[in-house]
Amino acid sequence: MAATQAAPSLDGVLEAAIYVDDLDAAEAFYGGLLGLPVVLRQAGRHVFFRAGSTIVLAFRAEATREAPAADNALPVPPHGAEGPGHLCFAASGPDLDRWAEVLAVAGVAIEADFRWPNGARSVYVRDPAGNSVEFAEPKLWATEGA
Amino acid sequence: MAATQAAPSLDGVLEAAIYVDDLDAAEAFYGGLLGLPVVLRQAGRHVFFRAGSTIVLAFRAEATREAPAADNALPVPPHGAEGPGHLCFAASGPDLDRWAEVLAVAGVAIEADFRWPNGARSVYVRDPAGNSVEFAEPKLWATEGA
Repeated sequence: MAATQAAPSLDGVLEAAIYVDDLDAAEAFYGGLLGLPVVLRQAGRHVFFRAGSTIVLAFRAEATREAPAADNALPVPPHGAEGPGHLCFAASGPDLDRWAEVLAVAGVAIEADFRWPNGARSVYVRDPAGNSVEFAEPKLWATEGA
Repeated sequence: MAATQAAPSLDGVLEAAIYVDDLDAAEAFYGGLLGLPVVLRQAGRHVFFRAGSTIVLAFRAEATREAPAADNALPVPPHGAEGPGHLCFAASGPDLDRWAEVLAVAGVAIEADFRWPNGARSVYVRDPAGNSVEFAEPKLWATEGA
């Protein structure tokens, strides 16, 4: 698996995927409650959201496991997982404080809220499909002091 | 689900999760072939990689569906999905050209390689666990011209 020259660059995760059963519920949670703009929606198949410089893809696995529809000639490979996935958003400490309030006001149960050994705080909830959604301070993964 | 004040900020995806059956194979692919530094590994449970300012989490679902181990007192919520997931890395056009070469040299099959209507190129392969791994130009999701 050795390359013949130095490896090219990757500039980080551009898209993170989760699987959901109900696109409307996903849009209410990620778009409505979390305030992420919807960038694309295809009825019965997916809804995508912008989160900073990244994109959250919410797919219905039963649709994405099939080949692309006839009206979409691009050879997008199939995929699709079952069961609760995981996704983590970056938020500053003051924003995390406010997210905990916003989620509580909205009636979303906080499943966990703690600090990691390096002091970074994480808050966990479930999206309507049961995925584990975390909000964490980016210093969780800082290269120094972690 | 209305908040009582303007929504706090989210600074994008911090962590994207995939599920794998074999952590060594995941490390060979993401760490070895793609060159992502390993930031954390727990035998039998997970291996995490740094990708720019984001983190790729590769989990064994049969382990992460269980409560945290006794040596980890933090109440990390369980999760774990089955079947092929999806992940997309950002790479510039020149880097994508080089990734296509590196992957070919390594014997990784290119499942798809095309340009979207806005001109952004995507290259798709499978990781050893069967997840659909895409490399895309970030202009795929540019706010202008998309």
